[in-house]
Amino acid sequence: MTRTLYDLCGRDERLRFSPYCWRVRMALAHKGLDFDTVAWRFEDKQALAFADYDKVPVLCDNDQVITDSFDILRYLDNAYPNAPVLGEGMSFQRALFFKYFVERSVTPALFRLVAMDLLAAIHPDDRAYFRKTREARFGARLEEVHAPDEARRQLATLLAPVRDLLEASPFLDGDAPAGADYLLFGSLMWVHTVSLETLGEANASVEAWFQRMLTVHGGVAGQAITIRDLA
Amino acid sequence: MTRTLYDLCGRDERLRFSPYCWRVRMALAHKGLDFDTVAWRFEDKQALAFADYDKVPVLCDNDQVITDSFDILRYLDNAYPNAPVLGEGMSFQRALFFKYFVERSVTPALFRLVAMDLLAAIHPDDRAYFRKTREARFGARLEEVHAPDEARRQLATLLAPVRDLLEASPFLDGDAPAGADYLLFGSLMWVHTVSLETLGEANASVEAWFQRMLTVHGGVAGQAITIRDLA
Repeated sequence: MTRTLYDLCGRDERLRFSPYCWRVRMALAHKGLDFDTVAWRFEDKQALAFADYDKVPVLCDNDQVITDSFDILRYLDNAYPNAPVLGEGMSFQRALFFKYFVERSVTPALFRLVAMDLLAAIHPDDRAYFRKTREARFGARLEEVHAPDEARRQLATLLAPVRDLLEASPFLDGDAPAGADYLLFGSLMWVHTVSLETLGEANASVEAWFQRMLTVHGGVAGQAITIRDLA
Repeated sequence: MTRTLYDLCGRDERLRFSPYCWRVRMALAHKGLDFDTVAWRFEDKQALAFADYDKVPVLCDNDQVITDSFDILRYLDNAYPNAPVLGEGMSFQRALFFKYFVERSVTPALFRLVAMDLLAAIHPDDRAYFRKTREARFGARLEEVHAPDEARRQLATLLAPVRDLLEASPFLDGDAPAGADYLLFGSLMWVHTVSLETLGEANASVEAWFQRMLTVHGGVAGQAITIRDLA
């Protein structure tokens, strides 16, 4: 019985900041499933050849190999139906919408908040790759993409529906966290692990939810190494 | 056995354009529930005094009086559990997020697309009220708020997660429409009933979904009177 998560690491092998890996870590914790991690770096494509994939997370669950964070969440719901993370039917569809909302709208704004911090957190051998791929995606140099104040202005607008929801319940999925919480949390954990930037005053309630998320499932995320812990 | 929906009407009593009333109409159709409507205008507060409320939709279901569109959807799921619209638990929470996404992010952009068309569609006696309340909300004159090209640019970005979802399934809630579809559809029906403006090329797949929505449940929305039908 082995369960292994290939997990992105930074300049210190203990620094784990991938938003997509954090989704999976939280989903595994949600279901009470133990796992080991293998530290992986962007340029180490060879290490994932067995999975016919070139990115993390990759989860090996005994003889199953699953790639892509959302597919891993879905796999976990199928293989371990207790305590659903995404759910089925309408619940699943709405989680899929929320995934797209996080990836298409929120994550690009968060990238602008911490672009240069991310570059600094990444292993030196990965920085050229990171710069090249991200600058191609944004069509600008990382130094121009990095714009924390502008990012906070964008996030004040973008996260309005999240704030509304947090007025109705302590977690996005209700009284306890589940898939929607983990999808957004992953992206905020990405910010938290590599940067001292905050979301800004407008998003104080989102920051408060994030702090609650650091304490759930035995505080697994709250115990993570961040740049605060590194020299 | 009577079921009555108080429904906003425009300069022609048959013109029914409220996004919030359309949510309820679609949810009633989804559950196969018959209903009559009472045409209501913004200034006719007295007609809703019995409900202790000053806006529509108001649904009278025998001796039950329910106000607020989302509360009506929730009421319908409780009173008529077959064919859930919002669902329960995580499904409900995620529908609530989607409601806020539609109301906080999408609807204001749609308002900028059709502000002056809306003013023209409204009953002349309601126009002063409409102008005053909406200009207060936007902090600008309706003539300045009305900016269709700018609105289309906003919608190209805002609706990206909706387009992603529509690549995965024909309706937002899966193979058949449900709550999430009705929440967004209401706002697009608002545009469709009062204006000839379109969402723009970037949102062609959203327009195609809207056309499908006009045909569901016996084409109830497709048969609605729009300004195309009025002299």
